[in-house]
Amino acid sequence: MAPSAPDRPLPQTQRTRHRRLREQGSLERADLDAILAAGFICHLGVTVDGTTMVVPTVYGSDGTTLYFHGSVASRSLVSSPAATVCVTVTHVDGLVLARSVFEHGVNYRSAMVFGTPRPVTAPDEKAEGLRCLTEQATPGQWDYARRPSRKELAATALLALSLDDASVKIRTGPPDDGESPDAALNVWAGTLPLHTSWGTPEPDPLLTSGIAAPPHIADRTGTSAQ
Amino acid sequence: MAPSAPDRPLPQTQRTRHRRLREQGSLERADLDAILAAGFICHLGVTVDGTTMVVPTVYGSDGTTLYFHGSVASRSLVSSPAATVCVTVTHVDGLVLARSVFEHGVNYRSAMVFGTPRPVTAPDEKAEGLRCLTEQATPGQWDYARRPSRKELAATALLALSLDDASVKIRTGPPDDGESPDAALNVWAGTLPLHTSWGTPEPDPLLTSGIAAPPHIADRTGTSAQ
Repeated sequence: MAPSAPDRPLPQTQRTRHRRLREQGSLERADLDAILAAGFICHLGVTVDGTTMVVPTVYGSDGTTLYFHGSVASRSLVSSPAATVCVTVTHVDGLVLARSVFEHGVNYRSAMVFGTPRPVTAPDEKAEGLRCLTEQATPGQWDYARRPSRKELAATALLALSLDDASVKIRTGPPDDGESPDAALNVWAGTLPLHTSWGTPEPDPLLTSGIAAPPHIADRTGTSAQ
Repeated sequence: MAPSAPDRPLPQTQRTRHRRLREQGSLERADLDAILAAGFICHLGVTVDGTTMVVPTVYGSDGTTLYFHGSVASRSLVSSPAATVCVTVTHVDGLVLARSVFEHGVNYRSAMVFGTPRPVTAPDEKAEGLRCLTEQATPGQWDYARRPSRKELAATALLALSLDDASVKIRTGPPDDGESPDAALNVWAGTLPLHTSWGTPEPDPLLTSGIAAPPHIADRTGTSAQ
């Protein structure tokens, strides 16, 4: 498999060749990076003993590797450490409301990453992976909160997944039936955008009085979360 | 497997017994129903020939059955029609920002449904399933847009999945380290809520002038989407 540097298109492997919705596939590395950078929750799919499980979990991406907690998939990944997984990150941008039900759809950006996760054991890489994961959800938090102790690091199961085998699908824009016979119907058509944004920080009721939310948390209020 | 009527707890099967995070599991049927009712996008996990895929797709739930398009999983489900799948619906409610990185987490509501999807072939049930799916994303749209023709119905692959084997996990509330030694640190702790809401309808550029967005679409602007 060819290496996938940031300025090269995603390699096409057997798994990631687009079979459906060809027009929505993207082979741009930048699209993959942007989708991964815009989120912090993925859906991890793993199969053990014939049972497929899809588990939501936090992730971090450094552009070449995706890190996630091993614990979320402990049962599966401990019993089948070499199992192939699929990690999917999806951002829903809105509803596509066409004249006909048949043409309805969703505007979205989605990335699928396939591979065999590698357990991260070296303390330095484990700390770096946890930093990546922490900063993905809350930029600035790694330098603000108490970092993991050696004991906590040891108690954390972290997995690393290469981004080499990845697939991106994107849909944008209005419905597709604007030039069909249905366009003559007296039916509104367009998109209904979906916005995801950060709210106002809610202090822990047990928080020592006088400690204010730092800017890297407080200043997110009202900003887009995708 | 015991039937799962709305007023009974979810049946505990081998697959859905909570192995981790026991305190976050819910056996309340009402929690499952509420999570499914609050969304319209699921992540469908299916494994074929040893490869697990996790695909985002729209769904509809009528309280006992979950409907989704067969086309999203055409390759997999056509080649393995009896495959067991896992459908996961997740709502992310916010970040849990603790004093220590180790205690960070996410407030969320998630439902996993396991089973073997059944292809829906009878035209009446197919229409009912598509109605369910359409109304899940956009209540009022089934009676407003042009409904599927017989030809369109025939061209739509629809799958039905029983809700009998389902699992729910929920996390709410502040971080867990408010009574730990870390509470003495000068570090803010609490939650940062994530809000998902509908934006302003954007008309199709090809829309015939004079057609306004109907209330069931226009009135959603600014309302919560979860």
